[in-house]
Amino acid sequence: MRVHHTSVTVQGDEHIEISDVTKIVRTAVHESGVRCGIAIANALHTTCALFINEFQAALVEDLKAMVGRLVQPDAAGHRHDDPRYSDCERGNAEAHLGTALLGRSIALAVNDGELVLGRFQSIIFAELDGPRQRAITIQIVGE
Amino acid sequence: MRVHHTSVTVQGDEHIEISDVTKIVRTAVHESGVRCGIAIANALHTTCALFINEFQAALVEDLKAMVGRLVQPDAAGHRHDDPRYSDCERGNAEAHLGTALLGRSIALAVNDGELVLGRFQSIIFAELDGPRQRAITIQIVGE
Amino acid sequence: MRVHHTSVTVQGDEHIEISDVTKIVRTAVHESGVRCGIAIANALHTTCALFINEFQAALVEDLKAMVGRLVQPDAAGHRHDDPRYSDCERGNAEAHLGTALLGRSIALAVNDGELVLGRFQSIIFAELDGPRQRAITIQIVGE
Repeated sequence: MRVHHTSVTVQGDEHIEISDVTKIVRTAVHESGVRCGIAIANALHTTCALFINEFQAALVEDLKAMVGRLVQPDAAGHRHDDPRYSDCERGNAEAHLGTALLGRSIALAVNDGELVLGRFQSIIFAELDGPRQRAITIQIVGE
Repeated sequence: MRVHHTSVTVQGDEHIEISDVTKIVRTAVHESGVRCGIAIANALHTTCALFINEFQAALVEDLKAMVGRLVQPDAAGHRHDDPRYSDCERGNAEAHLGTALLGRSIALAVNDGELVLGRFQSIIFAELDGPRQRAITIQIVGE
Repeated sequence: MRVHHTSVTVQGDEHIEISDVTKIVRTAVHESGVRCGIAIANALHTTCALFINEFQAALVEDLKAMVGRLVQPDAAGHRHDDPRYSDCERGNAEAHLGTALLGRSIALAVNDGELVLGRFQSIIFAELDGPRQRAITIQIVGE
């Protein structure tokens, strides 16, 4: 049995930004030497998300719009008052809530040395309170 | 250590349809011969969901109603314009967004050769843009 | 390879209550003797949630407020009619729906015998239809 641990960092340019990190996780799988097993990836933060969906420009806008609508940053009168990373006027509660809705962890099968992903599936990283450096850990167990 | 990989397909009859796939995952666990370990199941798509809840007719209707409300297919003016599978008039952004909210992956313990599930827990598959054939992979590691 | 299984129970005082269960999962990891691997924790119920975020009093209130808003217990006319645990007047559909949105499972890396969590990350248990005793299973595989 083999257990492989990798930690990578990602950083965007915008306060809210959605990017495709599939290649990063795929590279970790290749480096692990695991042919068959399970890979999990976790963002080590509470105001960014990690999930699987199609990575397509228009859909990214739809995702941002939905999350914005559901966490209601302006109307909800959030109590959490940590300053936002790039804007001290308001707290960052909406980023925490978006993380709670989208999740910050994925678990995938590894077969024949490759991540098992569907044709339209990408591993998506959503920065919800940036831009800042974020750590993602990738753990792979198998043989 | 044993790693067991299975791929199954599911197909419903409706554009949006929620079904109980517990038995499918349970059968894969039995066939794996793993007595103690971890099982993960992933839908290999971006417009259907896999999660755990009670499978009960009235609750299924409540789930559909909530997802419909949160993704707001009519009012939100989604930008993503892939045609819906069974209705070419509108894009299927709402199915992608529903998948992002519900998740498309589960991770469960296996003990004594059985999935560890609570009394009211079922593994639920939610088709959000069907009907079409969908692949679910089940990966089991343990001994 | 080592597979370690633990089952713990948690119980709060309120109908809806959010608590930090990080220590419980951390203790299970220590007791497992696993130095390097994967830990998953699952709530064995359909009306409570398990997820990772910052555990902070004001944010807990924001989370409760958001879930309450999204599941719309009063306006949505839910069909599911199981009696709520502590209030027989209405069904508990909103608790099932909150569970579907927040998730009831986490998967984390274990390194050097410790859970890999970010500085502000806690494992959070959200009782959505209590107070009652709830079972959480923790499964750890590794070496």
